[in-house]
Amino acid sequence: MVAAVKLHRGAARRKSGTFLVEGVNAVTEALAAGLVEELFITDSAVERYDDLVAAAASVGVRVDRVTERAAERLGETTTPPGVVAVARLIDVPLDRAIRPEAGLVAVLVEIAEPGNAGTIIRTADAAGADAVILVGDSVDPHNGKCVRASAGSLFHLPIARAAGFDEAAALLRERGLTILATTIDGDLTLDPTQPRSGLPEAPVAWVFGNEAHGLSAEVAAAADHRVGIPIRGRAESLNVAAAAAVCLYSGAGVVR
Amino acid sequence: MVAAVKLHRGAARRKSGTFLVEGVNAVTEALAAGLVEELFITDSAVERYDDLVAAAASVGVRVDRVTERAAERLGETTTPPGVVAVARLIDVPLDRAIRPEAGLVAVLVEIAEPGNAGTIIRTADAAGADAVILVGDSVDPHNGKCVRASAGSLFHLPIARAAGFDEAAALLRERGLTILATTIDGDLTLDPTQPRSGLPEAPVAWVFGNEAHGLSAEVAAAADHRVGIPIRGRAESLNVAAAAAVCLYSGAGVVR
Repeated sequence: MVAAVKLHRGAARRKSGTFLVEGVNAVTEALAAGLVEELFITDSAVERYDDLVAAAASVGVRVDRVTERAAERLGETTTPPGVVAVARLIDVPLDRAIRPEAGLVAVLVEIAEPGNAGTIIRTADAAGADAVILVGDSVDPHNGKCVRASAGSLFHLPIARAAGFDEAAALLRERGLTILATTIDGDLTLDPTQPRSGLPEAPVAWVFGNEAHGLSAEVAAAADHRVGIPIRGRAESLNVAAAAAVCLYSGAGVVR
Repeated sequence: MVAAVKLHRGAARRKSGTFLVEGVNAVTEALAAGLVEELFITDSAVERYDDLVAAAASVGVRVDRVTERAAERLGETTTPPGVVAVARLIDVPLDRAIRPEAGLVAVLVEIAEPGNAGTIIRTADAAGADAVILVGDSVDPHNGKCVRASAGSLFHLPIARAAGFDEAAALLRERGLTILATTIDGDLTLDPTQPRSGLPEAPVAWVFGNEAHGLSAEVAAAADHRVGIPIRGRAESLNVAAAAAVCLYSGAGVVR
């Protein structure tokens, strides 16, 4: 329990190779993925979620009863759900995450906000993406806020890390994906009022940049196309998770 | 300054008719909209943002120097920008917000998370929407998190409140808009891989529901169509701000 509380910190997660998963839905997904090592649950939660406890016990997961107060320390939300699991990190090696038949991949370059990363992972899952790649200094996907924002999708598709964009781009090209960088001005425009918008159909990798700075000129230039989302009103730009939703649901990259 | 700190609370905002706007970009937009009553700024920020101070002074806005510590109390972010304004509430009466020629409107029904509301306001602005309507128990758009997530868009398009969905729907129909409720299963599907998806072109109002519960059966039934976003992976649903981005950028409702 004391060791588990430390997993709120990235260094402790890397050292132990585990992270915290909070809430009955996310814990259910982590269990289904075979990643749970230990389950902490309060007395009142045991009554509500007896199925979960039975599922955990049936695969040999250790179940520990904890006080409400301990659950609060393990959780990060203001209304702690009383169910927190210690699970193995979900990192998948890059070349295993991008399968040869991948049709749609989301690439996050230096995304800083864990809520944005988690929301994009959830959207990528919903859009039928094959993988999500976190490049360079992107946020740790095992951060509690990212885990919660992903609403279980963290366990649904492979999440890989790449040290630099070049490494990710080389593999994506090897797998035959067209690389689309989202930029303010593009050589292509994602305009739903224009038929097709000239976007490639599949397979594609969408690349999204940092919240404040966007993609670097180098990354934009290294992509096959730069795609702009039209801004019709007076907003300067879109939130990156909103932009990702528009792109991942644009129909580009969907294998029919 | 003491009175201004109280504006972190909704009750104080309603009583005074003012709210806090944090950061140079948002304050610039609030000034441009003619809503700023008072500007608090630190000595170091005065040097960096002398244009802003001059702009405020030129329209008769009172400028108060504050300490870094006072700025921290006025701000809500961990790295306070040193610039915080007191601005008049942006609420616009419903029948003024929805102009007769409105082509695209976003309707938020009981949206609870201020970050989601702010992001949807920003996306609606970017997509060229004419107004955003907050229905019923939706979050206060003047909440600090909503203001920050809107990235200035709060000041770009009219934001109105409606006590109930019926009131909003009646006015939207009177203005000739087709009302599209976003639901898990729809009589229409927003599928970019299908040409047109059968969505009406313009003018339309998109209706988005609460993060946890979605739209009530009554609201869904009262809309002209229920539109589903296809879920291709294993996610149960999309984050509401991501869903709003997909819908508002679907091309439905855009006047060409």
